[in-house]
Order: sequence, then structure tokens, then C-alpha cells
Amino acid sequence: MYHHIKKLMFTVRVGTPDPRFGNMLLEQFGGANGELAAAMQYSIQGINCEDMACKDLLMDIGTEELSHLEVIGTLARMHLKPMKLNGDGAEQDPLIIIAGGGGVALHNSMGNPWTSDYLKITGELDVDLRSNIAAEARAKIVYERLIDFCDDPGSKEALQFLMTREITHMKAFTQALDSLGKAVISPANLIPGKGALSVGQIPPTPGIVSQYYNDSTGEGDQGEIDTTGPWNTGDDITVVESPALSGFQVMKASPKSGKTTLKK
Amino acid sequence: MYHHIKKLMFTVRVGTPDPRFGNMLLEQFGGANGELAAAMQYSIQGINCEDMACKDLLMDIGTEELSHLEVIGTLARMHLKPMKLNGDGAEQDPLIIIAGGGGVALHNSMGNPWTSDYLKITGELDVDLRSNIAAEARAKIVYERLIDFCDDPGSKEALQFLMTREITHMKAFTQALDSLGKAVISPANLIPGKGALSVGQIPPTPGIVSQYYNDSTGEGDQGEIDTTGPWNTGDDITVVESPALSGFQVMKASPKSGKTTLKK
Amino acid sequence: MYHHIKKLMFTVRVGTPDPRFGNMLLEQFGGANGELAAAMQYSIQGINCEDMACKDLLMDIGTEELSHLEVIGTLARMHLKPMKLNGDGAEQDPLIIIAGGGGVALHNSMGNPWTSDYLKITGELDVDLRSNIAAEARAKIVYERLIDFCDDPGSKEALQFLMTREITHMKAFTQALDSLGKAVISPANLIPGKGALSVGQIPPTPGIVSQYYNDSTGEGDQGEIDTTGPWNTGDDITVVESPALSGFQVMKASPKSGKTTLKK
Amino acid sequence: MYHHIKKLMFTVRVGTPDPRFGNMLLEQFGGANGELAAAMQYSIQGINCEDMACKDLLMDIGTEELSHLEVIGTLARMHLKPMKLNGDGAEQDPLIIIAGGGGVALHNSMGNPWTSDYLKITGELDVDLRSNIAAEARAKIVYERLIDFCDDPGSKEALQFLMTREITHMKAFTQALDSLGKAVISPANLIPGKGALSVGQIPPTPGIVSQYYNDSTGEGDQGEIDTTGPWNTGDDITVVESPALSGFQVMKASPKSGKTTLKK
Amino acid sequence: MYHHIKKLMFTVRVGTPDPRFGNMLLEQFGGANGELAAAMQYSIQGINCEDMACKDLLMDIGTEELSHLEVIGTLARMHLKPMKLNGDGAEQDPLIIIAGGGGVALHNSMGNPWTSDYLKITGELDVDLRSNIAAEARAKIVYERLIDFCDDPGSKEALQFLMTREITHMKAFTQALDSLGKAVISPANLIPGKGALSVGQIPPTPGIVSQYYNDSTGEGDQGEIDTTGPWNTGDDITVVESPALSGFQVMKASPKSGKTTLKK
Amino acid sequence: MYHHIKKLMFTVRVGTPDPRFGNMLLEQFGGANGELAAAMQYSIQGINCEDMACKDLLMDIGTEELSHLEVIGTLARMHLKPMKLNGDGAEQDPLIIIAGGGGVALHNSMGNPWTSDYLKITGELDVDLRSNIAAEARAKIVYERLIDFCDDPGSKEALQFLMTREITHMKAFTQALDSLGKAVISPANLIPGKGALSVGQIPPTPGIVSQYYNDSTGEGDQGEIDTTGPWNTGDDITVVESPALSGFQVMKASPKSGKTTLKK
Repeated sequence: MYHHIKKLMFTVRVGTPDPRFGNMLLEQFGGANGELAAAMQYSIQGINCEDMACKDLLMDIGTEELSHLEVIGTLARMHLKPMKLNGDGAEQDPLIIIAGGGGVALHNSMGNPWTSDYLKITGELDVDLRSNIAAEARAKIVYERLIDFCDDPGSKEALQFLMTREITHMKAFTQALDSLGKAVISPANLIPGKGALSVGQIPPTPGIVSQYYNDSTGEGDQGEIDTTGPWNTGDDITVVESPALSGFQVMKASPKSGKTTLKK
Repeated sequence: MYHHIKKLMFTVRVGTPDPRFGNMLLEQFGGANGELAAAMQYSIQGINCEDMACKDLLMDIGTEELSHLEVIGTLARMHLKPMKLNGDGAEQDPLIIIAGGGGVALHNSMGNPWTSDYLKITGELDVDLRSNIAAEARAKIVYERLIDFCDDPGSKEALQFLMTREITHMKAFTQALDSLGKAVISPANLIPGKGALSVGQIPPTPGIVSQYYNDSTGEGDQGEIDTTGPWNTGDDITVVESPALSGFQVMKASPKSGKTTLKK
Repeated sequence: MYHHIKKLMFTVRVGTPDPRFGNMLLEQFGGANGELAAAMQYSIQGINCEDMACKDLLMDIGTEELSHLEVIGTLARMHLKPMKLNGDGAEQDPLIIIAGGGGVALHNSMGNPWTSDYLKITGELDVDLRSNIAAEARAKIVYERLIDFCDDPGSKEALQFLMTREITHMKAFTQALDSLGKAVISPANLIPGKGALSVGQIPPTPGIVSQYYNDSTGEGDQGEIDTTGPWNTGDDITVVESPALSGFQVMKASPKSGKTTLKK
Repeated sequence: MYHHIKKLMFTVRVGTPDPRFGNMLLEQFGGANGELAAAMQYSIQGINCEDMACKDLLMDIGTEELSHLEVIGTLARMHLKPMKLNGDGAEQDPLIIIAGGGGVALHNSMGNPWTSDYLKITGELDVDLRSNIAAEARAKIVYERLIDFCDDPGSKEALQFLMTREITHMKAFTQALDSLGKAVISPANLIPGKGALSVGQIPPTPGIVSQYYNDSTGEGDQGEIDTTGPWNTGDDITVVESPALSGFQVMKASPKSGKTTLKK
Repeated sequence: MYHHIKKLMFTVRVGTPDPRFGNMLLEQFGGANGELAAAMQYSIQGINCEDMACKDLLMDIGTEELSHLEVIGTLARMHLKPMKLNGDGAEQDPLIIIAGGGGVALHNSMGNPWTSDYLKITGELDVDLRSNIAAEARAKIVYERLIDFCDDPGSKEALQFLMTREITHMKAFTQALDSLGKAVISPANLIPGKGALSVGQIPPTPGIVSQYYNDSTGEGDQGEIDTTGPWNTGDDITVVESPALSGFQVMKASPKSGKTTLKK
Repeated sequence: MYHHIKKLMFTVRVGTPDPRFGNMLLEQFGGANGELAAAMQYSIQGINCEDMACKDLLMDIGTEELSHLEVIGTLARMHLKPMKLNGDGAEQDPLIIIAGGGGVALHNSMGNPWTSDYLKITGELDVDLRSNIAAEARAKIVYERLIDFCDDPGSKEALQFLMTREITHMKAFTQALDSLGKAVISPANLIPGKGALSVGQIPPTPGIVSQYYNDSTGEGDQGEIDTTGPWNTGDDITVVESPALSGFQVMKASPKSGKTTLKK
């Protein structure tokens, strides 16, 4: 059950409203990485979750994101007010003024309706936590870009608050993943099928999992190169050069024997 | 520039075609976590990427996913063939038979059109890599579920191959994130704004980033509890109990001084 | 600010889970007239609302709908459980089991993603209240149909509770509209531009507003007739017979003089 | 069967074309509350309708809206002409000029494709009529806003005509609802389950239907208050204060006995 | 201006209603190649069209498609009736029964909402006519598949009528394209930039337009071959073998000189 | 299997980047008639195709379009660079800068997400080829419009190359259709059900296929006329004047006897 208190989690103050910036803010209200997306992703994962500790975590943060939705919505509405009063910026986003009367609605900065296609909910707890860590990283960088475009000190403070909380949540989700034994990453522990590289019950096929396919080769006009990194070097990695061109084709992948049959 | 070779990356063999399973397979062809989503997410991140080593990695894997798209599409089509020949299963997915003539199309198992709303592309390399790690985890678990629903040995082998490659990619993206100094996670290094918890340039506000908001409390009828975990215990964490109810409200968040002003 | 309590607003009890019915229930979770649609429509209207009394009403009901979302989501998840455990009903909705691991997600009974295109938010208070009255009527009839398809007494009780609340809300929104002087309807008071037929500031053009265009004529094979009702009879109504065929065309509509110029 | 006459229902005259205003006009061509939405909502309700009198009404107005679609489309196209001729305003809406060659298409003012998710069709006549009354109110306010943004007298006249017709339709749908005994509203007749508050066959649960849940409390920084109105005062209403916080939970709702069981 | 007559263009008779087939029929009501798509594509092209003869053609056929929409909607509704009466087939398409009360709505056979993304409208008359010829071909084959799935003689007759009309329209659009000098095709007249291969004003670059890129090579497991046809043989065609692999890259394409600069 | 070479098919050179033009270019990257749409439409038709010669053609061109996607994406990104560096043009398309960090993403010039609803894939080879011919014509005219809006010589050259290739493909698809005996069009060979007017197996009903319905009549204010063309004149055509108004209604359409029964 939910209860609403008529206080914003962060007191919003706007010096000079800027409808164009208000429009940009909608990216975090009804956009792909915005607060409704966060609130719904975590809360619905929470409804599905059968680990009671993580369920509590998901509901805590899911509920906090609802409070963030209210903060960003209020902030956007304050910036859009001149559009309502005198049509300032209306041509930029006619949807807001003509269809919405100058108020906020659940769309992004380009008027695209919010859709649950934005959400990543698999019902597999560790997978969902990884999706949440990535979601928080995305939300963090979007807030940073909004701050970079913002001149109003009061708005910047509110955005700084919201941005900070994303890092808080990123940490909490990482700790939850760690509590499942799937977060600790060190160059030494990157073993396919174990720890941070473990998902579900079925193990990856041993031979195939170690192959790196060099599917993009050559050099480009703007400095593109075919190069190496930790991902395609090292004793545990077999590089397959240009598999399409070399006639490489896998015929049988047996998870039990670990044998791979190739065909030329 | 792309070149296509008329060989599948994995030789597909289907014993007994099952149109209902063919329909399920579309989840990985035109679905939210499927192969087109993977191919497009990585390839477009690659076009935008200015780190030449990671660009190479993104194009390698993006191209491999195109080859996977071809494998899963061919596998689905083989399973759908009886629907084309005698209408078997047509009522289950009339879109396939009536609109598509029994062939595959870019929709998921419920006929929803593929949309780029599925993709997570931010133009911030480390953020994109985190999104990719999560995307691979999702694809892995979806393949596992398809294997669990599958009776045909040949189909299982193809799915096992594709599933295995997700783990390979998950490892490669983790190593790339590590090459940026943002992957190594240990209980000791979880410092907001540093390493694995660092995104962009603007640091989180010190005081606020350490607060855990206990926004969901009480006990539920099915065992829901208000509990603790590593995410809301420890010296570096301040738990704020039921912020909405306690009159908690942040008024000012200064990233420089690290001071937070609360109001009651 | 929001707070969540780990108690459902209505205690959910399911005797015999039925995944097919669980799938149907998603219509009220992530469907066009479901609880998220209600929660978002009223809460965002509330954020935009400048009448403090109605804002309170909108936030009260918007918050209650969030609690309903939790009830219906929990109920659907209990019915879907056998799909998760043994795949029962999986072919009916592969999206739930393959993509979602047997849990609920924000889509309707046919797997369509929830979209804010479902919402009706205009920023004009009396218009929004009329949209809300209609929304409650739609939700009521959908719950009634779900009850008619349901065999499980415990599920029926939960649905009866949720259905009842729609009538409560319908009454409250009607009273709010009445508090604006725009709800009271009697055959005597249906004057265009006044009371229940008043929207915004610009009055309708007197002559034109009284014309009824008989644009569909003749008799059909299944009893379709060209008939009369209160809407096209009475002293204050001018019926224009088959305007397209009679050469009727309006050339000038003057809101001040009330004169209409027609052209033949 | 339909027939088209090459006369507009309203003669469109544009003095000075304004592509930016032409773009705004698309809101009523291919937008959520526009003329195609109206035409389709009423005509399809008409196809489904089994009350022959109301079916006639729905087809009359549904057909008129098709004629309105033609008027608004022609008006928008005249305003967009300079974009076609010399690219004026093209950067504002590149979709129109690059994809559409300067003509109109079925999208709204922000380029969002028209979708039948905009429609409200339930197959329950009185519910559909309520949706139609609300739809006409929305269309009316959108036309009013377009008039407020418009400088061209000829365009204003056309919009005034179209706006006026929405009030005509609003009245007709209200009279139709009244003919079903569900429209007359007076403070005295607001009885849940009767007349204007009657939907479908299943009555609401007596005790529960009279409860008002005060789910949003406190005072906000911008004057938000927890207040009263006709909806939460009066002898027939039981106010439940902060149900989530007070441990309120409904366990059983019996439509027959009217008894509600609460649990603390 | 439109007028509606309460007669169907084709008298619909259904012997034994079949809700599953009714569901399939929705593909031509609210589906991608259905009657609303046809009606809207042609009518809106007509509104934009400045060639008065072709505008008349587009409005004639656009209006006829509205009459077809009414026929297919009525036919679908007759087949869906048992679902409304006794829930037969409801699990197959819960959207129809739960959300729509057993009536038709503007979605396809899988419940996807109709969207104007289905339409092809470019504002370039000959291009639009080509899109229309293709659209009619698609609609024809979809009707044929529906006939193949249909057991009811009366329904087959209605579908045969609608299918026949697609060929009529295909011919008319081809004749219209011919009246623009862009339809007549013979092996002799396939000259890029002329007649049937002429679009717009800018001519294609001579050298490049004659190159055929053999981008897919090799042999596949199911008989896929790298082969020849009229499209990559003949004196006027230069085949570029595996351009990506051969280092082929175009550096400059001059429409005036017809010279192409390649780079290795 | 696919391989990627780090060379663009056309060397992209941009003199003065123009973010607003970069935004327009997205129409051909993630837009309805853009390169991803082309690549996917042909490649998936190719996967479904059972004619090995046409399958090769579809894979050749499908793969080339992937290379075009890379060219247009790189070109758009070069034009968008100033938006990334200093926010130039950010208000025009906030989605690019705020959500995408200044890079390209799979949406069109108005920010609409790419959707497979853009694709036309029926699994009937000749129908698909007709759809492809029309698709190439649309892509050609869109490139021409982009060239007309472009001032930068280097960009124009790249667009000229891409535009030219559409004509090449249009010719190839026409030749493929001809190889099936369905392309040659001359005024003499337009026989319904034969050659260019042949689709599928079921012949059109003889009498009905020759009827032209004059469904739009009269004269309009802007020169609209009810006129004749090759499509409604000639011995083989029966014109039915205003069928809706004349009581025309088809009762029986027998494909065998060719008899049509009308009813008045």
C-alpha cells in the first residue's frame, strides 16, 4: 500500500524558468532512462521477487524513484510555466502547449510516449540487478548532461540531488548482486559460468565460450583499427580470425563433453 | 562494409518441427533481448565510439550478433514450416501465417513489432558497456528458458551455442570496462564516484550519496519483511527511516562542500 | 513523497491458480484501462493542477490506484505461478514465461507494452475530470468482465473490491466536476456553452451549434435504421439532411454575430 | 457504404500561410484527440452497437468527423505549403518535408504516428458514450488553444466551426446517455450503482463504495493542502485516514451482505 | 465531405460463426495491410495530390476502402459473436472480450494497435502510386490466405469480393502510373533514370548505377547458392565481386561527369 | 555469416558540419524508408525465400544496405559533432544530446523509434518484390530531398552515391519480378489475374474486377474535379456511378461463374 505526503523529497527552486530546458527535463520524467522507468522497473521486479531481502531493497528504491518522479515533474512544470502563460517556446514542443495545456505529460523531450518497452524485467534476480546497475549508470549520465545544459542554480541543485541518488542506488544494487556471489570482479575471477559471469543454471560450452571471433577487420579512414585488448589476448582465449571468411562453422556444441565440432 | 557468406555460423538441424516452439524462438529474433537488439546496440555504439580499441570490440561483437540473427531466424523458420504447409498452430499466431505466409518477421513471440526502444545507447562508453553486460545476461537467461522448453536435440544444440556466446561477450565487455578502470568490484572498493561506481565527470554529493532511504516498511501477508542487507548496514551508510513519514526533505545539495541541508 | 507499506490494500487469496486467467488479469495491470493508467493519469493531472482542493483529490485517488496496481499485480502473479513452475499455459503467452520468467510485466493480456498514449491529460481541470469519469466507467466494466470469467472465490472477492472502488472514484470525480459548476445535468439545463456543456473560454457559434447533421441514412440488412432520438428532435435543434448530398457547405462562422453563411 | 463529395464541410481560406502553425494543426489531424481518432472511435462503436437508435447517432457523428478530418487536413496543408516551396520551417518538422514532401500525414505536431491506442471502445454503450463526452471536451479545448495561437482570420473561422461542432456532439452524446437513464446528475441523485453512477450489472459493495481514502496528506511548499470537498464530506461518506499508515486492510468484500471485513 | 448509407457494399452472410476466424479477420480490419491502412493511405495522398485527375482516382479508391472497412468489420463482428455470448475463444484473444466486450477494434490478429507507421505517403505522386500497387498486391495475398483458412461459404464470398477489388485497384494505379509515363516495363526499356526507373529530378550517377555488388557469396547447407539472373548479367551491368573483401571503396560520385573514383 | 571490414563503401567527407542537417539525415538511418528498413526487409525476405536465385539477390542487396546504414550513420554523426562539442542545435533534438550524448541512434528526424512496422514482408516472392520496388522509389526521393537541403559538397556526393544505388536496386528487383513473369507492363497486357496483375492462386471474380466505383464526385473549391483517365474509361471497364447513393450492393460473387448478383 502506498501513502503520499505533500512534501517533495527535494525542495525545488527555480530562478528563471526556461521552457526549452523544461522540455529537456521531460527526458527524466517520461523518457527511456527516466524516473518512471526506474520506479516501474524496480517495483515490478519487487512484486515478482522471491528473495525477501532483495524484495525489500527493490521496493525501497522503487518507491524512492516515485518520489523522484514527483520532483522532476514539479521542476519541469515550473520551467514550462512561461509556455503556458505566453506561449514562449510553444513551437519547440507544440504537444506540451496544444495538447497538454502547458503541463507535464509522460513523454520524453521529443514527445515520444513512455512505453514499458523501456523496462528490463526478466524475473531472474541477478540478471535484473545487473540491468538495474546499468540503468542507474544511464540515469546518472543523463542527469549530468542536464546539469551541463542548465544555468539556473536552483535547478542544478535539484538535479545534483537526483544524480547523486543514482550512484547510491548503483552501489546498493551492486552490493545486492554481491550478496548473491555474482558481483566481485577481478581480472583473476573472470571465469565463464562462475561468479560475475554466471547466469542461470545451464553452463556454457567450454570450448566455444573461450573463442573470440574477429568479425570486423581492416583499417578505416578515421583511424579505425583491428586491434587487441584484454578481451582477445591471453592464454584462455582462442582468437578465430574472420570466421565468415575462413569457412569456420560450428556443427555441434556439446555442453557435457565440452567438445566442439567445426566444419570447413 | 559488410560481406555475407552463405554459411550459418552454427549448422542448424531440426528433427521434428514444432510451430509453437518456432513462435517462442521469435523472442530471440525480433524480441526485446534478441539478436537484432544485440547487433544494433553494439554496432551503433561502435559507430559512435571514439576509443578505437573498444570500437573494434563493439564492431566484432555487433557483427557476430548479425550472424546469430541469421541462425535463430533460420531455426525459427524451420520450426514454423508445418504452419506454412498445413496451418498447424496458425490460430496461435495468426500474424505469422496470415500476414507473413509462414515465414519469420521482426516481431517477438506475441507479435509485437521490434522497436529501437529496446536499445540502450548513451554515447558514454563505460555506461554503454554496463548496459551491454546486462543485455548479455538477459539474452543468456532467455536462451536457457528456450532450451528448457525444447525437446528437439538439434535445436537444443543451436541454442546452447548461441547461449554460450552470450557468456563470451559478457566476459569481453567486462574486460573492456575493466580496461577503463571501472569494472573491478570488491567489497572494499565500492566507493561512490570511484571505479565501478564512477560515471561521467560530476561527483555525487558526499552526504547524500551515503543515505539509504527506507521507503518500504512493515510486514506482508506472504512473508514480505523490512530487513537489512549489506546495502543498508555498515559504517559508511546512514539509514533514513521512512523519509516521507518523518518529514525528511532535502533543501540544498552542494557538491562542493558536501553539505546537505535538511528541513523538517 | 511516497511511502510504501508491505500490506496489500486487499488481502489476496487464490484457491486454484489459473495461468490463463492470470494472463487476462494483466489487462488491469498493464492494459489501456488498468491501474497504472489510472495511477498515472490522476497523479500527473495532480502535479499540473492549480486548484488546491482538486489537486488533493487527484493525489488521493492517484495514490490509491498505485495500491490497486500492487493488488492486481500480486493477484496476477499468483495465477501465473503454475506457468513458472511447469510451463502450464506458456504457449498462450510465451512473453510471460520466456521473456519474463513467469512474472508479471507492464503489458496487457495480449503482450502489448503499456504506453502513455493510453492517458488523457489536458491540463484543463474540468476536461480532465470528465476524462476521469469515463476512465472509471471503463475500468468498472473491465473488472466486471473479469469477474464473469473467474471461478475462484478469492479472486472474485479481490476483483469485487477493486471494481467497487471505481464507482467510488466515479462519484468523487463527478462531485468535483459539480464543484466547478459543470456536472449537473438535467434535460432542462443542456445549453451549449453553459454548465455541463461548457469547456474553456470561447463560446460555440450559436447557429451552427444547434445543427444536427444526418450524415448516415438508409436502412441496413441487420436492422440498421435512420431514426430519431432526443439528440435530433426538439425546438432547439435544426436537422440538416444529408449535408454532403444536399450541397450544404459552411462559409463563415462568426462567434460574435451568431450568423452562419451557407453556400449551395 | 460511404460516398465522398468534393466539397469541404467548411470552406477553408488562408491569408498568410504559417508552416509552424500548420505543424501545430496536425495535432487535430493525426493527434490523440484529433479528427481521425473521433471518426474511428464513433464509427467502430457504431459497428459494434446493438441499440439501433444509438447506432444511427454514432454513425452520423462518426461520418461527420471524417468530413472534419478532411477540413483540418486541407487547412494544415495550406499552411505547410511554404515549407514545400522553399523549405521554410523545415528544421522544425523535418519529417513533413523530408519524408512527406511537404504534405500532411497521420502524425501529431511532434511527428508521433497515429495509433489506435488513442481510442476508447469498450462495447458497453453507456461506457462508450461517457468516453465520447470526454473526448469531445478534449477536442474542444484543443481547438480553443489552436485558435489562441492563430493570427489568420480565415483559419480562425474554420477552427471556430470545428470547435463549435464538438459542443454539438457533446450535447448529443449526453442526450443519448440520458436516453439510457444514466446522464441526469444532481447532487441528490449521486447514488453508487444507480443512474449516472451505474455501469454494467454487478453492483458495488455497499460498505466499501462509501469509503474515501485520504491517501495524500500534509502540506506542500507551493500551497498544497490536505483539504475537504463534497467528495470527502457528508453523511454518506466514511473517510479512512491514511489507510496505508493506519494498518487498514480489507480482507473480504461481500457484494451480497454488504459487509466489509477489515484487518489491523 | 462524406456521406454514409446504411448498406454494406457487399451483403455479409455467415453460416457458422467461428471466433478464431473472426480474430484472424482483424488482420484486414486493423492490420498492417488492412482496409483502414488502404483507406487512409489513398485518401491522405489524395488530400496532398496536386494532379487533379489522380486526386480524383485516389479519393475514389480511398472512399471505396472505407466501405470495405465496414464490410470486413461487420464480418469479423459476426464471427466474434459467440465469444461475446459465451466466452468461446476468449483465451485466444482476451483483448477482444475483456477490453472490447466482444466487438471489433482497430488492432490486428495479435492485438497490436493500428499505427500510421503502416502507411507509405511521400507526396511524390509516382512514388505513391508504386507504393499503392505494392499495397494492393499485399492485400490481395492476405485475403487469399484468409479464404484458404475459411470454411464458411458466405464468408468466402465476401472475402472473394474484397480480394477481387484489390486487383481492380492494382490495375487502376498501374494505369495512373502509366499516364505519368512511368509504368511501361519491358526488358528493353529498363534504363536507369528513365520511365519505370525514373523517380524525382536528380539523375543517378551513370557509372555507379550499373554496378551490381555481389555482397553475399558461397553455398549454404540448404541449397543456398551464389548465382546469376538477369539482374547481374548483361552488357550494361558491371559485377563487383565481394566489394567489402576486395578493398572496393567509392571516393567520389559525380553526377555530371559520370565518373566514379574508386580506392583500394 | 557476416563479416565487417573497417572501410566505408563510400568515403565520407564533411566540410562544415551542420547539426540540423545531421538530424535530418537520421531519416535515412532510423526512419521509415531508411537503410535499416531496407537491410532488414530484404534480408528477412531472403531468409524466408525458397527461390534460390532470388534469395541470392535479396541477400546481396540486403547486405549492401547494411553497408549503406554504416555510411549514413557515419555521415550523420559527423554533422552532429558540433552538437556534442558545444550544444549547437541541442534544443532542436534534445534526444540526441541528452539521451544519446551527441551520437546517432535508431530513430528518425523527429526522434521516433525505428519499428519493424515499417517493413513489408509477406513471404510471397512476387508481392515482396513489388514492395521492394516501391521501397526503393521512396528511398530515392528521400535522398533527393536531403540533397536539395544540403550545402556541403562532400555530403552531397555521399548522398548522390546512396541515391544512385536505390535506382540500381529498383532495376534489379524489377528484373527479378520479370523473371517470374509478373513485371512486363504494357497497356495491352493489363489483364486482371495475369502477368503484372497476377498475385497468388485465386483468380479475381470476372465481372466485379472490371467495375470502377465512382465514389468521389462533384467539384471542389480548389479545382477538384470528377474526371476520367485510363483507369475509368475503355471497353473493359464498367463505371458504377456513386454506388452508395445508387443503391448498389453486391450480394454474391462467384469466382467460377463470373456472375455478380446486385441488389437495389
